[in-house]
Amino acid sequence: MAETDGPARTDALFTDLYELTMMQSYYAEDMHDRAAFSLFVRELPENRNYLLAAGLDDALSYLENLRFDDADIAYLRELGQFTPDFLDWLKDFRFTGNVYAVPEGTPVFENEPLLEVEAPIAQAQLVETAVMNIVHVQTLLASKAARVVEAAKGKAVVDFGARRIHGRDAAIKAARAYHIAGVNATSNVEAGRAYGIEVSGTMAHSYIEAFANEAEAFAAFTRSYPETVLLVDTYDTVQGVQNVIDLARKLGEDFQVRAIRLDSGDLLALSRKARAMLDEAGLQDVGVFASGGLDEYKIAELLEAGAPIDGFGVGTAMGVSEDAPSLEIAYKLTAYAGQGRLKLSPGKASYPGLKQVFRHESPEGHAIRDTLALHSESLEGRPLSECVMREGKRLKPDTDLNAIRTYAAEQIAALPPEIRAIQPADPPYPVKISTKLEAYTEEVRTYLKGLERRTSGINSRS
Amino acid sequence: MAETDGPARTDALFTDLYELTMMQSYYAEDMHDRAAFSLFVRELPENRNYLLAAGLDDALSYLENLRFDDADIAYLRELGQFTPDFLDWLKDFRFTGNVYAVPEGTPVFENEPLLEVEAPIAQAQLVETAVMNIVHVQTLLASKAARVVEAAKGKAVVDFGARRIHGRDAAIKAARAYHIAGVNATSNVEAGRAYGIEVSGTMAHSYIEAFANEAEAFAAFTRSYPETVLLVDTYDTVQGVQNVIDLARKLGEDFQVRAIRLDSGDLLALSRKARAMLDEAGLQDVGVFASGGLDEYKIAELLEAGAPIDGFGVGTAMGVSEDAPSLEIAYKLTAYAGQGRLKLSPGKASYPGLKQVFRHESPEGHAIRDTLALHSESLEGRPLSECVMREGKRLKPDTDLNAIRTYAAEQIAALPPEIRAIQPADPPYPVKISTKLEAYTEEVRTYLKGLERRTSGINSRS
Repeated sequence: MAETDGPARTDALFTDLYELTMMQSYYAEDMHDRAAFSLFVRELPENRNYLLAAGLDDALSYLENLRFDDADIAYLRELGQFTPDFLDWLKDFRFTGNVYAVPEGTPVFENEPLLEVEAPIAQAQLVETAVMNIVHVQTLLASKAARVVEAAKGKAVVDFGARRIHGRDAAIKAARAYHIAGVNATSNVEAGRAYGIEVSGTMAHSYIEAFANEAEAFAAFTRSYPETVLLVDTYDTVQGVQNVIDLARKLGEDFQVRAIRLDSGDLLALSRKARAMLDEAGLQDVGVFASGGLDEYKIAELLEAGAPIDGFGVGTAMGVSEDAPSLEIAYKLTAYAGQGRLKLSPGKASYPGLKQVFRHESPEGHAIRDTLALHSESLEGRPLSECVMREGKRLKPDTDLNAIRTYAAEQIAALPPEIRAIQPADPPYPVKISTKLEAYTEEVRTYLKGLERRTSGINSRS
Repeated sequence: MAETDGPARTDALFTDLYELTMMQSYYAEDMHDRAAFSLFVRELPENRNYLLAAGLDDALSYLENLRFDDADIAYLRELGQFTPDFLDWLKDFRFTGNVYAVPEGTPVFENEPLLEVEAPIAQAQLVETAVMNIVHVQTLLASKAARVVEAAKGKAVVDFGARRIHGRDAAIKAARAYHIAGVNATSNVEAGRAYGIEVSGTMAHSYIEAFANEAEAFAAFTRSYPETVLLVDTYDTVQGVQNVIDLARKLGEDFQVRAIRLDSGDLLALSRKARAMLDEAGLQDVGVFASGGLDEYKIAELLEAGAPIDGFGVGTAMGVSEDAPSLEIAYKLTAYAGQGRLKLSPGKASYPGLKQVFRHESPEGHAIRDTLALHSESLEGRPLSECVMREGKRLKPDTDLNAIRTYAAEQIAALPPEIRAIQPADPPYPVKISTKLEAYTEEVRTYLKGLERRTSGINSRS
């Protein structure tokens, strides 16, 4: 929370200590050459056919504003691990690098760079932790939300997650990611303010329980909010619906309630029963809204069974991405001083150099396959990655969240139906590696293995 | 991040919209009586035998500092859902209630209140979202970390989670929760500063890759950090260990490296091989540190197999509580205007009134069972809940995080071994409901059902 986050006034110390110790060593060794780092997801979670890129805007803000203030430097001095020279150097530290990225709202696949940083190595190293954190949580939550929106087939989806999303920052960022993914509104007022997103909400069980009975509670709430949604499951759902109908009779033309909300029990049976009761009472305009432990699987099941539900409140399962609460996101050195780099450790291989992704599309705009290529290649298909920051300045200062949302909807709609679907796609969306990138990867591997052999040889002679 | 969280200067709008609309209705209906709300976890996740309470300190800070500034009120006005009178009233809003809670670091079980709020209903209602959010994430992550610490059997555990924990706020709070649970250090520099926790870190693969070869990288890093931990798996782990041994031979008495770090591959086999190579080279003082996708299950497996590992870096699995990424935490009205309240909806029952938990302990201090009772009862056992805030002021302004950590260690050690263990306990820890609480619950249920019947009767006559 604002008051309890500690004394931070900058984001510079929101980093792993090793970024700073490595920086000091680069500084001490006079290593100021430019490095390229690639942020990508190694392998998609089992239950994700694609990821929806999100978080770039915040990552760029972080990079633009990155600096160490006196309090930051004083704390680092206290740690006793940094030299006065290095700490002095940090005072003028700024991020002056270039960033290439796919636009927010782009569906991405494994090994495709979400973002690439190209900067003097100390700069590109320092930002690893924060950039990963920012892009990870927003991409994770946008990807989950896109599935919920897909399952809801055009019915409204409202974010109810603030209470159980992990911390305040994620709860606010979640609402932004959800907006990109097509969620209709959020219950989170601060997120509404921060991003200009529609806020939505009605009443809790506690409100109903504070009154002598449910009918009185409904009457009181509609006095302040005539066009509200009334929660009907506090005591007995069918009686709750009846209480709404009775209120409608009593209020006559003043009755403007938009919907009832079901929050527990058998939502299929109860939504049918409620719909029938409302229809019978001539309340065809009163919708049925459902919540309570929902996720894309449950929503799909309800709608496939024909549940007459007009909208869904989705909280925890979407808010923590319950079935895949993290992504195998990595931020890897891919070039230093003009030379491609990669890691040879088992199971964690990567591709060297700055890259481009070409999305092959049909004449109608349907995505067919991607090719991961060298940045310098020019292949068939639409290039997804673009330069978004040059010498520390972002190229498009204004981010239009609604434009991102529209773009995301188009991009998702262009995916093959089985990739958009919530069931695992088999085969997955095809991502090819270009011939030149394959060859370059092999070249860098051979070069690095040669270096290691030479090291090994030298060592064994020493 | 600090710069991108939007314009918030208070925490007042970090709430669900319905808290505010309910408040306005309470205000409009002149409902200012005191309410009691209970924050508890309905059912423990399958893989948790207990939860470790955390987050109280931040919840109390939030409550103490809660107010609406002009910008908050202006935004609410823009929403067009609030009356000028109500918005005026918010200007002087303060939390003036009482809070009862179990101390942070207390193991708790299902239905046991982590925290109870007793305040005028509008106040107690507003704080629901933020208090749940704060206590949920810290309790979730402390509970997960306690399992990792248990599995590590006294070996060091270091938090590596900052890059994938959901957002900055959670990453910083996580380090605090981990400290309470017995984790030894964090890589998160901001968290180290915020809470005075030990920060720790070494080098990444990118550092190694920036040099012509691994041996040069090791030599360079130890020039800045002689007592460091060297990462040996970038190219070939066995060769990496050999490079460390060669460095030791070269540096002689200047060699002060504390440990090597394994981050991939078969950690059991590699730790044995590395240990043997180091021992053979006379480097018995150089430890073996392991990381890379670790959680309590993998750590237990490694140590049970006798892996010679001295410490563990644990990131994502602990950071998102991967096997249980949320808790069924609830904040329920339990009394209003002196009358017990509860919800009758299926599967979501609760107990009315302010409560106390009595922990029955053996003469040696071992926890035997708990009894959930009315707040007014005085039963056998140690009462866990205490008044921590009176009339909006906390009773103990200074929180000593190390004292909480010591208390947590004692409390965890006092649990039955099968409850402390990472395997699911069968039977679970016994939590009884006191006779008086059972009777009171029945009384309130009967009363509420009577009210509903009367409502129903009235309606059917109308």
